[in-house]
Amino acid sequence: MLLKSFLTNIADAGRDLLSGHRHGLLDGKANIASLCHDLMSQKGEALGTAMAREVVQIYGSFTEEEKLGFFRLMLDEFSPDKDKLCELATAYINDPSLNMASNLAAVAEAPRQDLIRALNMAPGGTSAVVNMRKDLLGFLKKNPELNAVDEDFTHLLSSWFNRGFLTLERISWESPACILEKLIAYEAVHAIKGWGDLRRRLEEDRRCYGFFHPALPDEPLIFVEVALVQELSSSIQILLDDNEPLENPNHATTAIFYSISNCQQGLKGISFGNFLIKQVVAELFLELPKLKTFATLSPIPGFRRWLTANRDDMNRTPEFIELLELLNKDWIEQPDRAQTLKGPLLSLCALYLTQEKRNEQPLDPVSRFHLGNGASIQQINWLGDISEKGLTESATLMVNYLYDLDKIERQHEAYVNTGKITCSKEVKSLLSPSLSFF
Amino acid sequence: MLLKSFLTNIADAGRDLLSGHRHGLLDGKANIASLCHDLMSQKGEALGTAMAREVVQIYGSFTEEEKLGFFRLMLDEFSPDKDKLCELATAYINDPSLNMASNLAAVAEAPRQDLIRALNMAPGGTSAVVNMRKDLLGFLKKNPELNAVDEDFTHLLSSWFNRGFLTLERISWESPACILEKLIAYEAVHAIKGWGDLRRRLEEDRRCYGFFHPALPDEPLIFVEVALVQELSSSIQILLDDNEPLENPNHATTAIFYSISNCQQGLKGISFGNFLIKQVVAELFLELPKLKTFATLSPIPGFRRWLTANRDDMNRTPEFIELLELLNKDWIEQPDRAQTLKGPLLSLCALYLTQEKRNEQPLDPVSRFHLGNGASIQQINWLGDISEKGLTESATLMVNYLYDLDKIERQHEAYVNTGKITCSKEVKSLLSPSLSFF
Amino acid sequence: MLLKSFLTNIADAGRDLLSGHRHGLLDGKANIASLCHDLMSQKGEALGTAMAREVVQIYGSFTEEEKLGFFRLMLDEFSPDKDKLCELATAYINDPSLNMASNLAAVAEAPRQDLIRALNMAPGGTSAVVNMRKDLLGFLKKNPELNAVDEDFTHLLSSWFNRGFLTLERISWESPACILEKLIAYEAVHAIKGWGDLRRRLEEDRRCYGFFHPALPDEPLIFVEVALVQELSSSIQILLDDNEPLENPNHATTAIFYSISNCQQGLKGISFGNFLIKQVVAELFLELPKLKTFATLSPIPGFRRWLTANRDDMNRTPEFIELLELLNKDWIEQPDRAQTLKGPLLSLCALYLTQEKRNEQPLDPVSRFHLGNGASIQQINWLGDISEKGLTESATLMVNYLYDLDKIERQHEAYVNTGKITCSKEVKSLLSPSLSFF
Amino acid sequence: MLLKSFLTNIADAGRDLLSGHRHGLLDGKANIASLCHDLMSQKGEALGTAMAREVVQIYGSFTEEEKLGFFRLMLDEFSPDKDKLCELATAYINDPSLNMASNLAAVAEAPRQDLIRALNMAPGGTSAVVNMRKDLLGFLKKNPELNAVDEDFTHLLSSWFNRGFLTLERISWESPACILEKLIAYEAVHAIKGWGDLRRRLEEDRRCYGFFHPALPDEPLIFVEVALVQELSSSIQILLDDNEPLENPNHATTAIFYSISNCQQGLKGISFGNFLIKQVVAELFLELPKLKTFATLSPIPGFRRWLTANRDDMNRTPEFIELLELLNKDWIEQPDRAQTLKGPLLSLCALYLTQEKRNEQPLDPVSRFHLGNGASIQQINWLGDISEKGLTESATLMVNYLYDLDKIERQHEAYVNTGKITCSKEVKSLLSPSLSFF
Repeated sequence: MLLKSFLTNIADAGRDLLSGHRHGLLDGKANIASLCHDLMSQKGEALGTAMAREVVQIYGSFTEEEKLGFFRLMLDEFSPDKDKLCELATAYINDPSLNMASNLAAVAEAPRQDLIRALNMAPGGTSAVVNMRKDLLGFLKKNPELNAVDEDFTHLLSSWFNRGFLTLERISWESPACILEKLIAYEAVHAIKGWGDLRRRLEEDRRCYGFFHPALPDEPLIFVEVALVQELSSSIQILLDDNEPLENPNHATTAIFYSISNCQQGLKGISFGNFLIKQVVAELFLELPKLKTFATLSPIPGFRRWLTANRDDMNRTPEFIELLELLNKDWIEQPDRAQTLKGPLLSLCALYLTQEKRNEQPLDPVSRFHLGNGASIQQINWLGDISEKGLTESATLMVNYLYDLDKIERQHEAYVNTGKITCSKEVKSLLSPSLSFF
Repeated sequence: MLLKSFLTNIADAGRDLLSGHRHGLLDGKANIASLCHDLMSQKGEALGTAMAREVVQIYGSFTEEEKLGFFRLMLDEFSPDKDKLCELATAYINDPSLNMASNLAAVAEAPRQDLIRALNMAPGGTSAVVNMRKDLLGFLKKNPELNAVDEDFTHLLSSWFNRGFLTLERISWESPACILEKLIAYEAVHAIKGWGDLRRRLEEDRRCYGFFHPALPDEPLIFVEVALVQELSSSIQILLDDNEPLENPNHATTAIFYSISNCQQGLKGISFGNFLIKQVVAELFLELPKLKTFATLSPIPGFRRWLTANRDDMNRTPEFIELLELLNKDWIEQPDRAQTLKGPLLSLCALYLTQEKRNEQPLDPVSRFHLGNGASIQQINWLGDISEKGLTESATLMVNYLYDLDKIERQHEAYVNTGKITCSKEVKSLLSPSLSFF
Repeated sequence: MLLKSFLTNIADAGRDLLSGHRHGLLDGKANIASLCHDLMSQKGEALGTAMAREVVQIYGSFTEEEKLGFFRLMLDEFSPDKDKLCELATAYINDPSLNMASNLAAVAEAPRQDLIRALNMAPGGTSAVVNMRKDLLGFLKKNPELNAVDEDFTHLLSSWFNRGFLTLERISWESPACILEKLIAYEAVHAIKGWGDLRRRLEEDRRCYGFFHPALPDEPLIFVEVALVQELSSSIQILLDDNEPLENPNHATTAIFYSISNCQQGLKGISFGNFLIKQVVAELFLELPKLKTFATLSPIPGFRRWLTANRDDMNRTPEFIELLELLNKDWIEQPDRAQTLKGPLLSLCALYLTQEKRNEQPLDPVSRFHLGNGASIQQINWLGDISEKGLTESATLMVNYLYDLDKIERQHEAYVNTGKITCSKEVKSLLSPSLSFF
Repeated sequence: MLLKSFLTNIADAGRDLLSGHRHGLLDGKANIASLCHDLMSQKGEALGTAMAREVVQIYGSFTEEEKLGFFRLMLDEFSPDKDKLCELATAYINDPSLNMASNLAAVAEAPRQDLIRALNMAPGGTSAVVNMRKDLLGFLKKNPELNAVDEDFTHLLSSWFNRGFLTLERISWESPACILEKLIAYEAVHAIKGWGDLRRRLEEDRRCYGFFHPALPDEPLIFVEVALVQELSSSIQILLDDNEPLENPNHATTAIFYSISNCQQGLKGISFGNFLIKQVVAELFLELPKLKTFATLSPIPGFRRWLTANRDDMNRTPEFIELLELLNKDWIEQPDRAQTLKGPLLSLCALYLTQEKRNEQPLDPVSRFHLGNGASIQQINWLGDISEKGLTESATLMVNYLYDLDKIERQHEAYVNTGKITCSKEVKSLLSPSLSFF
């Protein structure tokens, strides 16, 4: 806190020094260009913190359009110097030595990287940069030329949010409210319905862990929620039920990872999830030696989409088409319809998860993530998620991916090298029936 | 602490997983190359932390020669791909668009940057990378081709140790011993003679501040020592004297920065000093509103060297030559000799500090630093440092550089743009006499 | 956390050691007596922590009746030894020396004090003792003989919760949720309506401070809520309104203490409030130098009760009786009735607050508290609290007590020595009209 | 920190308020009496913190004689009221009810207890009270009447430093220097020879734990030093040797408690040691599961004194007298003399430790402490401490007391109830030879 107020203060002082030259925020748009150029000059060396803060403040007051203008400025005025780069490219072609390559690299790196680094010096600069990128992402679709700018943001943020700089922290009911409210805001898989629901998810038979970066102490980057139970969970509704009695965590044999959420849109594409799950497995393993099984209870977001997409496939059997039709009716309330659907859907889901690929990768994005981490497909659960979302996405099916510490590496290698998807006997046994009518 | 042991643990687990493929550290040299390549592959994604730890451990067991081999490996096998770079250089010359520039930049960046980023994921990785660069610096003289590797280390470390990621912390007698012992080890200006001397420097009328990086929590990057006094200090021996009574810091009017030391050789060339002094000024200003004057008590390391270098200059007067001879005798113990020397030396020193330049910069390195920060030359002190070092370097002279918050920016600009060195009337008045006999 | 689990562990170990002698919690009631006696013996020295934990656990499993039995046990078996006390009383009468007084005091102190001290050694012992007293208070009415036991609890808790052991802590949105939920639970003046309301009360123009005891780190003992505003607040509804814009706390001139709540029923009668307000005044004074006025916005809980009690007084005027009748009607919705009431009620309230006493003390309990602290009566506010409670208790009136740092001591002395109540001219001017019709 | 400065501030403010009545510290002696009486009055309620601070400051400026005067004041003016006490003593004799006992106890408690409680409210009050008692202890010998005052200090400090309020903390090289310097100052068994020696005692194969009280955060109350080794240590010199290689603590099987030191003279007689050792045993047991043996390496401070005291006993054999004479010569440098002494001394020491008692307790004070904790005598070590002190006190012998978690309770009970001293077979076997010549 001291440092924060102090930084504000010193930046304030710097700003006052600067105020002779400028006329406040009103003419920010005109000024931001010259401020950015100054930041890159010798002046920036001496007054970097104050000037960076100025830019961040002006940016903060910008309309959408002005923000877009700022990114265009980054593209137009802070790209590599064309003549110089041509010159060095030619020089390299003539003398492709390591030394010349170094020189070329130095000129090829866009000066906006330096600009972003300079902005990071502002009080709260890291947060400002992350939020700038969030804004930038919104412009990319309509302004694809800004991808060049985004590449530089991504490059720097990947470097700054390197795993070596992150800390794993347990989030509990003892955590500050200003962090806990972020869980409510960022939970992306199974929405948290207020502080009561949150509290249940932080009871003694639950765990929540997140990655934090020292420059964003109140902002989880990603967090995972875990339930400590006695066997593979097969229903998310039971897991989240307030009325279920608490378990004694010391007796738990199974840790179920039931939700993992990225928090910072500005860090999109910078992956933390695989690190997080493995570290939490290790952490729990140390704390609760009775835990033997580490698995997820995961959605299958692409299952029904895939079913539907197959409707028009000539090869499909009439039984399959019939099934699809049944699915569109209000089957969940009707026990016999549900019973009819159960077997075929479990079979088809096993097929979907283990056989269907695009670009040699599993079709289902969640599956891709966990199999890529070295996990295997352990169990498919009928009525695993009976919420509206569960019905719509996956006809209530959910799946447990198993993280077996002894096999993760081998499975990861097999998956990467040969595309092999490991699944349990139980799941395998679901496969054959499906082939007859798919 | 928890995280640290946990990281060790998970990395240990990973290592055990890996152990099937390798035969321990003995054949490290052979292995490190393949480990590094694996780290860059998809395998690295899944086992990055464990593999990075392996590389760091193997490196730690290396002889000097093997370390050199490792840096050559970085140069030979992790430089940009020659063919691809030529191809893209050509492409850029043909189509010097922003898009092509992006592509070129991506290939021009040496893959060893990615390797260093991967190593940073190891437990203690940041510290390991900083120490690798320290080793690398030792090889550069004899192996100048490794400068290309050093450029990449420097590039990344500059980005990671960006001001925005550092925290300013006060170091006091309440600080952990494991940090305090670093002050004793790293103090570079006026050696700390054990824990008693250290304690005196942390009493209530002294302050010590350092910059820290979250990934190196026990390692100051740079620290500055400050005395809170009643007037410009003119003698370092009095300042460091154990027997001087403590001042009440609340009555102090003057803060004297009497020592600033960089701590991490591996961060050589990455400048923190100018940020540090200004932040400490702001910090003290807030804490102790009675402080009016912020100044240094600085050595003049190049003064006698410069005097000597002028001995053979034809233009010098006989008086000057005489003076030089007197200087070589044991004058300090003899009041009349000292008295003879005082006036001329003060004059010459004013000349040296304000007029003598190389490449349009002040000759004296300490002067260069403070003037570059926007400080001015306030006072030159006779018998300021009567230690052996003070005698040898500067004939006992020391100088106070003044940090006047209201003038720092203007002076910095004048210095940068026109080379103007600001000094007090008192120092100016010393100048004229010198001209007559120099 | 480490220590906590460790203490649990060591106490567990101790319990296992003990288990040879006992048969678990079932026969707790029989056992607790012998356990308590053992605790006082030499055995307690060696196994104190474990035995204390045992008692606390058994107590925790008790029914109301068994708890009552436990306090009777404390009375019957842990009171001073009658014979010995008689003997020493006689001895003292014969030789009333300081030495004999010491001996007498040692025997006169009930052994249950030692028992309570021993229980405090259990993990969580302080909390257990505080909660025991809470239970005990519930029994006193029907079992007045237990007052002797309560005196010993009170004596020890007063000593343990001595101001010197308490820490003042700011409670903010950065505080742990497990503390914040206590605010919601314990707020006694203006109920907090959930986490949204709580968050508003912790915004930047609000402050909340509490006293904590190191042995109860998650439990505020008392807390006060403050609003930072521009002038004396005259309406609690405006103060608590979510839709009011935030003020910049650095511009605030006035700090309004609008709620103060004791949290621990088990500490009833141990007063922290006067310390708390003064310390918070000092804290705010240091943090926000622009604050000039420190005052409360306080309820007047006894005002209407007092009005009603005066109904049957022969001396009262017909106008007064009429007014009372008007008060019982639904006047608040009817502007002209309200207008009629305003003047007389303000006058009567000034009379009530400044003149009405019992046992030479102000009749109103809140007034007693603040005047006893040295505050003065500054302003009476019409429609200050238009909630149901405000209407019922004080016909919507609220009062500002002023804490003027320069006058607190003098006013406190005058109040204590001569019963003088200080009030502002404005309040004084309200007084005279009332006399004509009361 | 904030609170500390704030408390200083509020107390300062209070003092200024008071300054109208008094004339500074010069006439402190006269004032302290009236200040103390005021503190007990209603005035104390409002201004307690400030007035307590005043008393503490005045006391701090006192000469020895004035301090003595202050304690006499406590005796003379803050003892129970003689008349009232007589009255209540008589009343109790006439009606020895529980109620009357309560009344009597309230009057029998010396008012100085309240005074001490009030002083505790001063900033740093707890520390001040502890130091007052330290001073008081120095006066007791010559002023035995002050024992009545000391009883009240002891009574309160015992209550305040109740085990339930203490925290066990590991002290390491990461601890603040201001705590570590206390270890050097307070180590009472094997002096720490500067920071280098201290650092060795905090290496990874060593542990140090202390009890702390929240009101004295920088002051250990007691600390214990532990070595993690492979077998019972038999020589303190080897244990403390800088040149011995570090052990891997994870492989250690044996924890040797080689030093335990009380730190606060003002807490003399308030015992923490037995709690500390048992808690550290539990702590280590959890952290390092390979540890099987917990034992001390202890001095035998009374051994040679006891030998000498037996010189004049008529019953002693000539061989014993001869042995004593040999002991007085410079035997340690002469192998054959040493060899002659070894057997008889080990025997006599076994006799001393296991048979010699006074008041049914072991003669040796260290033995008394550990046996009272439930430990047993495991091994007597020849040349265990060859320092000057070791030679003089115990002819180089040291002893290992064993803390066997499974037996502590039984041994403690046997020791307390029947005086039984448990020792190993090895020690028993040393006993018989001694009987022949003692």
